[in-house]
Order: sequence, then structure tokens, then C-alpha cells
Amino acid sequence: MSSHDESRFAAEVYGARLERAAELVRAAHLDALLITPGPDLRFLMGSRANSFERLTCLVIPASGETPSVVIPKLELASLKGSAAGELGLRIVDWVDGVDPYRIVRGVLNAGARVAVTDVMPALHLLPLADQFGSLPVSATPMLRELRMVKDPSEIEALRRAGAAIDRVHARMGEFLRPGRTEAEVGADIAAAIVAEGHTEADFVIVGSGPHGADPHHLVSDRVIEPGDVVVIDIGGPVEPGYFSDATRTYVLGEPDAEVADQFAELEKAQAAAVAAVRPGATAESIDAAARDVLIAAGLGDYFVHRTGHGIGLSVHEEPYIVSGNDLVLQPGMAFSIEPGIYFPGNWGARIEDIVIVTEDGCESMNKRPHGLTRLA
Amino acid sequence: MSSHDESRFAAEVYGARLERAAELVRAAHLDALLITPGPDLRFLMGSRANSFERLTCLVIPASGETPSVVIPKLELASLKGSAAGELGLRIVDWVDGVDPYRIVRGVLNAGARVAVTDVMPALHLLPLADQFGSLPVSATPMLRELRMVKDPSEIEALRRAGAAIDRVHARMGEFLRPGRTEAEVGADIAAAIVAEGHTEADFVIVGSGPHGADPHHLVSDRVIEPGDVVVIDIGGPVEPGYFSDATRTYVLGEPDAEVADQFAELEKAQAAAVAAVRPGATAESIDAAARDVLIAAGLGDYFVHRTGHGIGLSVHEEPYIVSGNDLVLQPGMAFSIEPGIYFPGNWGARIEDIVIVTEDGCESMNKRPHGLTRLA
Repeated sequence: MSSHDESRFAAEVYGARLERAAELVRAAHLDALLITPGPDLRFLMGSRANSFERLTCLVIPASGETPSVVIPKLELASLKGSAAGELGLRIVDWVDGVDPYRIVRGVLNAGARVAVTDVMPALHLLPLADQFGSLPVSATPMLRELRMVKDPSEIEALRRAGAAIDRVHARMGEFLRPGRTEAEVGADIAAAIVAEGHTEADFVIVGSGPHGADPHHLVSDRVIEPGDVVVIDIGGPVEPGYFSDATRTYVLGEPDAEVADQFAELEKAQAAAVAAVRPGATAESIDAAARDVLIAAGLGDYFVHRTGHGIGLSVHEEPYIVSGNDLVLQPGMAFSIEPGIYFPGNWGARIEDIVIVTEDGCESMNKRPHGLTRLA
Repeated sequence: MSSHDESRFAAEVYGARLERAAELVRAAHLDALLITPGPDLRFLMGSRANSFERLTCLVIPASGETPSVVIPKLELASLKGSAAGELGLRIVDWVDGVDPYRIVRGVLNAGARVAVTDVMPALHLLPLADQFGSLPVSATPMLRELRMVKDPSEIEALRRAGAAIDRVHARMGEFLRPGRTEAEVGADIAAAIVAEGHTEADFVIVGSGPHGADPHHLVSDRVIEPGDVVVIDIGGPVEPGYFSDATRTYVLGEPDAEVADQFAELEKAQAAAVAAVRPGATAESIDAAARDVLIAAGLGDYFVHRTGHGIGLSVHEEPYIVSGNDLVLQPGMAFSIEPGIYFPGNWGARIEDIVIVTEDGCESMNKRPHGLTRLA
């Protein structure tokens, strides 16, 4: 896009999001949204500002009045990378020695009932609560309406992210070999994540042998051995900030027959969950579709986490694909489907794709084969 | 240290910190401290856990009873890298589908008055506040007593961090040359930060020419020109997590006489602030010592930020060296002294050392020359 097109895009897309956010706050009978740096700020005004001890805060009045950005004078330059200019936001800067929380109250009024972004740290939340005299509520029940259902530009970004991480998995034979440590393999994967089009590597899990049984293992100095089953769960953001997240399981040699059989059940479970995705299904029904296959195979006790999480400008966001979540799926929702089986002290496996709900099912962002991929 | 020595160190140092934290909470007439992942958790139990949407929380009862760690079953492995075992902490794990906030309330009681770490996100803070029926308070007024005054092992870590970043500044001639972009120079500096002993590069500011006038500029695609004044502000953590942070200003050629004169005033201001540091002085008096020199030289309006910030397991922490902070300095406190002068659209300069208060003055962690260093 030309810079002129980008500005118009910014004004249209972010302007519509801000208006819709104000409507949702009004519908919730609150007076304003307070958004500090993080994914919500990026979603609402394209700002990539970082969170510091000095308050930066987007204030969206429910009234529909122009939103304000309260920002340290020192950080004004960070607005250049955002749509603040195109949107005509009110900029209220402040310098060291001034109380920025009082400024936020001044933009609204003393008794305002406010909702705050989930990432707002206590450092800022507690003095804001003091100013308004009440405990804020979470903005997520409002913003998730906006953020969960992706628009075409967001879906396109998630497709690019999926293709980029698929290219890294396609190169796994270059990195993953017996005799190397998980950390060495992980460093090569991180470089490939960037080389294949991500702005950075956000996470790299190389869970070899018994480490594969810890779903949140990252990397270690363990030397990978012939015969190891290895879980590779990797991802990062592509411009303008949307994440990839894909897991495949590899084996360095011929797998045991039992491993192969149990993995086949996992593959069925993942496919069953993907097949269950359609508008009108609930989030928990997708979790159940995967879990039921593993329970039927006697592996239910080894699937120790939920089936998935939403993804977009955050790696983990709503909707969560978990028992107890009766949220009804709609076209445009994006989330992971990633059942796993974990045998502590022994081995583990996981298969993960990102899918987007379509009119009659779902589209997977990840196209690599799901099977236990033999590398050596 | 041998692993046996490390365990004893962990039990002694972290055990004493936890006991002292409980005493401080008791003295504040509160019932417990709630600490989610971040620098406070690292300080209190040596945990490097990351913050996720699933709650991990150290609960320190004011009663002196054994603290508990409420943690997702999935994240139990993260405790291995902490002192939880040596300290005999109670581990309360939970699985998807359970309400972890209710578990925290169960560890204490429904009406408990709690203090929370400054980094706790709203995502966790708001449901915890609901459980306890009141707005938590910030734990920082309590924990800063513990964290501001560094013990000998912490001072030793800050010395190592200072020496490591000094080695990077000593190599600046390898990286900073006309014809290269700020981003290219920054990438080389980031690699050197790691090569010289940091676990990662946390921040790299290459503010060349007019970009030097923005104190929070990072890097850009601007090509560095002969004659540019360039602000280089860099740092990162060294094991076990303590940060370096040092700024020097370079010039690529012969500086203008006016630039040289104004920089000489900045150098005097930085030296005056360092000379003012001693036990009994207030934080704001150190800020005034630097500011008064610049005001006398007619440069007061160009020094647009506070003089410094504390440093340790966070890059920015208490004590803040700022007007209005009457905190009395004590031996062992560590902070930056970093006055700057900024001429928007033109150039800027800053000089920054980390100092630690001693019995009769201070010790600087950074030993590189303070002058405008000519590189080409």
C-alpha cells in the first residue's frame, strides 16, 4: 500500500474499531475504556508503544466523544508509528513530577465507571482505581467481541503467519539431529523463524525424549539421542503483529510400535476436533471432540491441558477451547487445535494447527503433514 | 558455587527475604502478599517463571506461615529453576477448568487484605480483588524496603553488569561509523552486549543527529553522517538477572564549538550529581544537583526528564531520582545518574552511570570516560 492508502486504511479500520469499542462500553453501562500498551492498544489505534513505569493510556469515552491519549512527553515520538494522527485523537502529554492518573480522571470525571485492558499492570491500575473511587472491570468481555472475529485483513495476516511457520517446519531436517542439544537446535529454529518472514521468534519449544512430556518445556542442554520423539512448538509475529503457532512431533529413527499406535490416536483426536469446528458449535464441544477420542483409546489421563486458545495480536487470547466455555463459534474466529499426550519421564507428543472458522467449517493456516515425521 | 552451596545460598538468602517480606506486610496491617511472575518473584524465590494467562502466584501470609505457590500443573517444571524446593514452600497446583483465584482465597481467607506486585496484570488482579471483596494495595511500599538496598551478592552482580557494558562501550569504534544505519550499528551492539557477558540485549538506543534529541528513540534506518553527535544508551541482564544501563555520547568528527561547550556543562552536571550522593541525602537533592548546573548554564529547559532510576532485577525500579521524592539515600541503594540535554530537530546528549551508595559517597559501576568521545 502507498503511504496515502495506509493512512486511509488506518483512519477507516481503527476509526471503526474505536467507535465500536465506545458502543460496547456504552452497552455495558460503563463510562470509559482505559487501554495501556499491549495488544488491545495495537488493535484499537495501531500503537506498538511499550509499557513503562510512566503511564501511557488511551481513554475511550462511552459518550462517543473523541478519545484521548495520555502520554509522557518523552514518549510522544512513539505516536508516529500509530494511527493517532489520522484518527485525530486528543493528545494529552505530561512530564515527570505531574500525576498522570489525575489527568486521566480530568479527561473523564471523578465517579466514572471504567473498564481496563487485561494487560494493565497493578502499578497503573491501583492509582487509577483510587482516582475513580471504585474497582475497574475488565475490558475483555467488551473487546473480545471485536477482537475474536477477525476481519479479512487480519485473516490474510494469519495466513501469512501460518505459511511462514510451515516453511520453518519444512526445514526441520536441517536443524534437528541426534548429537545436538535442544538449545542448539532451538537457536537455529529461532533464526529460521525470522528468515522465513517473522519479525521475531516469540517462542521455541524443543521437547526431546522425556522433555516432550512437559507441555511448557522450552529448550535445555539435553543432547538429542537417536530414537528420540521430539515435540517442536514454535511461533512469532508477522507484520502487522499477528502470530503464528504450530506444533509438529518428530522422531529420530524408527518409533516403537506402542509410540506409533498412541500417536495415531492423537492424530485422530486432532482431526476430530478440526472436523467439529463450524459456526454454531461451542468452544467446549471442540475440546470434547478431541478429548473423547483420547478417552476412548485409554489415553484421556495423558491429555492434561485444554485443546486450544484464540490467536491474533496476542499468542493466547479468547476464545479458549476448554471445557466449561459455552461460547458459540462464529465465522472469523481464529484459534489453535492442539491436543497432546504426555508420559512423564518418558515421552510426549502434540499436534497443533491454527484454524479460522468459515461459513461451513474451518480453514487451517497450517498445511504440513500431521503424522509423526521421521527425520533420521 | 557447587550445587550444594547454591542450595544453601538459596535457602538462606531467599528464606530471609521471604521472612522479612512477611514482617513488612504484618507491619502494614495487611494479611498477605500476592506475587505473580516478574522481578519481585525472582527476588523472593529465585523464580524466572513468565507471566501467562494461567495464574501463577506466590502467596506470603503475614502470619509467618509457610508461603504457598499456586501454579498451573502445566507449569510445575518452572519451579525447578527456583528455590521453591530448598525453601520448603507449599505447592498448590491446579488444572484447566478450576478457578485458581478461589484457590488463592482458600489459602488465606475471604476477607483478607492483600498487597500485590506492581507487575500483576488486570487479568489476574481483578478476579483476585473479587475474591477478597476489596481493592488490593501495591506491595511496592513494602518490597522496596527490601529491594532498594542491595546486599553484597547483588552489588557484585551489578559490578559485573557494569564492567560488561563498559566493554561494549570500549568497542564502539568497531560499530559506529558514518554510512551505516542506526539499525545496523544497533544490531552489532546487541551482539556485543551478549558477547561481553550479558544473557541478552535488553535495549539499544542509537540516537544519531536529530534522533539524539528524543530520549526514548531506539534505532531507525537513518544513515549516520560525518559530524553527527550520537547518543548510545545500552544495557541488559547478567546472571542472576541484574541489569547494566550505561549511556555515552559520541561524535563522528570534530564537534562544533557550541556543541562542545554545551556538552561540557552536561558533564559538569553529571559529575555534580555523582558528587552529591551520600547516605542521608535525598533522592530529589541528587536531581537538583544536576539540574542546578544546567539551569545556571542556561540549559535547564533542555533537560526534560528526571535524573535517574533505581536498578537491580528491573531496569527501572525504586528509588527514582526525581523532584518531589524526599526518600533518604542509604548505603547499598543502586541507581542511574543520567542527565541529558535535548535540542529537538538538531542534536542531543546524555551521560549515564549506575552508582551504588557507600558509607561516605558512592561507587560507580561504569568507568568509561564521560567526555564527548570522538570516533572518526
